[in-house]
Amino acid sequence: MQFLIKTQSKSSGARTGIIKTLHGAIHTPYLIPVATAATVRGLDQKDMESLGAEVLLANTYHLHLKPGEKTIKKLHGLHEFMNWHKPLFTDSGGFQAFSLGYGMEHNINKIGSFFPGSKTTKKEDMQEKKAVIDDNGIRFKAHDSGKLVHLNPEKSIKIQQDLGADIILALDECTSPLSDYEYTRNSMERTHKWALESLKWHKKKAKRTKQALYGIIQGGEYKDLRLKSAKFISSLGFDGIAIGGSLGKSKDDMYKILDWVTPLLPKSKPVHLLGIGSIEDVFGCVEKGIDTFDCVLPTRVARRGSLFISPESKGSPKNKFRINIDNAKFKLDKNPIDKNCNCVACKNYSRAYLSHLFRTKELAYYRLASLHNVNFMLRLMEKIRDSIDNNSFNQLKKKWLKA
Amino acid sequence: MQFLIKTQSKSSGARTGIIKTLHGAIHTPYLIPVATAATVRGLDQKDMESLGAEVLLANTYHLHLKPGEKTIKKLHGLHEFMNWHKPLFTDSGGFQAFSLGYGMEHNINKIGSFFPGSKTTKKEDMQEKKAVIDDNGIRFKAHDSGKLVHLNPEKSIKIQQDLGADIILALDECTSPLSDYEYTRNSMERTHKWALESLKWHKKKAKRTKQALYGIIQGGEYKDLRLKSAKFISSLGFDGIAIGGSLGKSKDDMYKILDWVTPLLPKSKPVHLLGIGSIEDVFGCVEKGIDTFDCVLPTRVARRGSLFISPESKGSPKNKFRINIDNAKFKLDKNPIDKNCNCVACKNYSRAYLSHLFRTKELAYYRLASLHNVNFMLRLMEKIRDSIDNNSFNQLKKKWLKA
Repeated sequence: MQFLIKTQSKSSGARTGIIKTLHGAIHTPYLIPVATAATVRGLDQKDMESLGAEVLLANTYHLHLKPGEKTIKKLHGLHEFMNWHKPLFTDSGGFQAFSLGYGMEHNINKIGSFFPGSKTTKKEDMQEKKAVIDDNGIRFKAHDSGKLVHLNPEKSIKIQQDLGADIILALDECTSPLSDYEYTRNSMERTHKWALESLKWHKKKAKRTKQALYGIIQGGEYKDLRLKSAKFISSLGFDGIAIGGSLGKSKDDMYKILDWVTPLLPKSKPVHLLGIGSIEDVFGCVEKGIDTFDCVLPTRVARRGSLFISPESKGSPKNKFRINIDNAKFKLDKNPIDKNCNCVACKNYSRAYLSHLFRTKELAYYRLASLHNVNFMLRLMEKIRDSIDNNSFNQLKKKWLKA
Repeated sequence: MQFLIKTQSKSSGARTGIIKTLHGAIHTPYLIPVATAATVRGLDQKDMESLGAEVLLANTYHLHLKPGEKTIKKLHGLHEFMNWHKPLFTDSGGFQAFSLGYGMEHNINKIGSFFPGSKTTKKEDMQEKKAVIDDNGIRFKAHDSGKLVHLNPEKSIKIQQDLGADIILALDECTSPLSDYEYTRNSMERTHKWALESLKWHKKKAKRTKQALYGIIQGGEYKDLRLKSAKFISSLGFDGIAIGGSLGKSKDDMYKILDWVTPLLPKSKPVHLLGIGSIEDVFGCVEKGIDTFDCVLPTRVARRGSLFISPESKGSPKNKFRINIDNAKFKLDKNPIDKNCNCVACKNYSRAYLSHLFRTKELAYYRLASLHNVNFMLRLMEKIRDSIDNNSFNQLKKKWLKA
C-alpha cells in the first residue's frame, strides 16, 4: 500500500490523496460504503461499480459467522467471493464488541446518541450484553445463532488474512461514551497490547498476503488518554492509523477529540475515522485531516425512509439534508428525491412512487433508496475532494452547512 | 389493440403472434411477469427493461388498496407512475376473491396443490375467509389493514380505467378445485352476468381509455360448464379471452380442460391463461393454443431459494428445473446458477455467494434470484416462440421435458 498526498489545505487539516493498493486506487477523502456480510445491504457489487465506488469495507465478525473465513478462503478470498476487484477493507471485529456489549447495555452509539432503531429503552432489551471483553479477547454470543465466538488479536488477524482484504485493522476495544475514565484507560491499554500482538501476527505473513494493517487509537473522550494512544499507535509502524472508540457525547466533543489526536499523527500515513459518516460529520472531520471514513448510515437510514437531499432541495428545518419518504406530502409528489441527483432512483422514479414502494414494503424500495443515499454520499465526497484541490473547501462547506 | 398471428403450428394448437397496443408490441406466446403492487417483487422497471420484458401485469386489488387508483390517476396513470412505457395488463381483483376466500379456507391453489408456503394446515389459519362473494360482488377484508373493500363489475372496470393499463380484465369469480358442481355452476353464471356488466361499463369509456377488455371463462373442472362458458364468453365481443378458475386437481386435468375449451375460442383473438407459468406448464399450454400467461411463480420461488436451471445443468431428479440454493452442497460451488444464463446473477456471482446471501437473508439475494428466474423464463419463452416459427417446438419440448 502506498499513500500519496495530492493537496494539503493551508488553512485546515483538509487534504486530498491517493491510497494505492494492488486492487486499485482510493481517492481520499473517501467515505467507504460498508458491505457488512460481503454486500452493501440492498445492493450488489454491479450496483457499486455503477456508482463508481472505489472501495468497500466488510465486517470480520459477520463474515466469520457466515459463511466463515475458511469458506471464503477456499473460494479464493473475499474479492473473488464477492466479485469485487477493487480495494477492500475489513474491520477487526472490535466494534461488534461494543455494539453487542456496552452499546447494547447502554442503548447508545459511538457518539452518545441513543440507537436510532430503539424507540423504547426497555430494560429487558438492554440488559443482556451479547459480548464480554477481557485481556484474553472478546467473547460473543452470535447475534443470529447464539453460537459462542471468541476473538483475540491473533484470531482477528488470521481471519482477516483468510478473507484477504487489501487493508485490515488491528483488534481494538471500542468503548462506550458512558464508560468512565478508569474503564477507558484500562481498555486503551488492552487495545495497545492487542496492537502489538496484531502487528506480530500480521508480520508473519505480510509478505505473502501483501495486506496493509492499520492500528486503532482509543482513549474515549479523555484528553490524556487520547494523546497517549495517538502517540503510542503512531510509533508502531502501522501502514495507516484509525481513530476509533467513543467520540464523546456530541459533535463538538468529536471535533475536540480530533483536534487533540490529529496533530500527533504521521503526516505520511492515511487516517481513517471508524463508523462516522453523516453529511455534517464528513465536512467537519475532513477539515480535521481525516482521509477515509466508513459508515452504514447511508443505507441504514435509507431503509428507514430517510433519503438524502442537497441544500437546493430544501428539506425540513429539523433535518435539511433528508426527507422522510413516509411523510404523507410525498404521496402525490412527482419530483425525484433530489433534482440534482443522477442515480437510478432519481432519474426514473418520483417521490410518489418511492413513497408507495416504502409504504408497501416492496423490496425494490430498499435498493432504490440505498442506491440513492450511497450515490449521494459518493458524489458529495467527489465535490469535497474537488473543493480541496481547488482551494474552495470552505465555500463548499458553507454552502452545505449554512444553507 | 390488434392481434396478428404469425405462425400456426400444423400439428398442435401452438402459435406465435403479436399483440399490438398503444404502448408497443407483445410477442406471443408470452409469460407476463406480475408487478403486483406496481413492481415485480424484488425488481424495478429498469431491471425489467434490462431483461427485455415486453409487458407486465399489475393487480387491481393491491393497487386499489395502496396507493389507490385515484392517486395513480392523479399521477397520470400506471405507466407514468411506474415509469414503464411498454404494455401493461391489470387483472380484475377476482383472483383475490379466491385466494383470500376459498383458497385460504381450503388451503389450496388453482390447480389443486396445497399452497406452497403453508407447511402446516392448521385449522385456525385456514378457517377465516378474508373474502366473501355473492351476486352483488366481492367483499374483502384487506390483507394488510383489515379495511373492508367491496368490488363489483362496475367498480373493477372503473378502477382499471383509472389505472389505465392497455389490457384489462372483466371481474370473475375464480372457484376452488374443491368447489362442487352446484357451486361452480352458480359461480359461473355469476361470472357470465358480471362479464355483461363489465362490457357495459367498459364500453362507456372505451373510446377515451383505448383499453382492451378480456372476458374470463370459468366452469371449474366440469366439462359441460367449461363448454358453456367458453361459448358464452366468446360470443360477447371481448378483445381477448382469458381462461380462469380452477383447472382441476392435476396437470392432466388442466390439459383436458384446455382441450375442451380452446377449440371453441375465436382463432383471431388472443387467449390468456390466468395464474399459470411453471416450465412444464408453459410447454403444455402453449401446445394447446395459449398466447399469454401471467404468473408470480418465478419471483415467488426465487425468494424461497428455488432457482431455475436448464436441462443441461442437471438438477435433482425430484425437480430437474430447479436448484434449492439453501442446499449445503452449494456453499463452496463456484459455478453460476446456470451456465447457459446471461443474467446479472449468473454473469457475476457464484452459487456459493448466492447461497451466502440467501442464508444471511441479504436483500441483494432477493433481487439477484428474481432477476435470474424472470430472465430464465423470458429467455425460455423466446426459445419457444422461435421453435414454433421454425417448426421445431416438439423437439424443444422433448429436449426440456424428457431431459
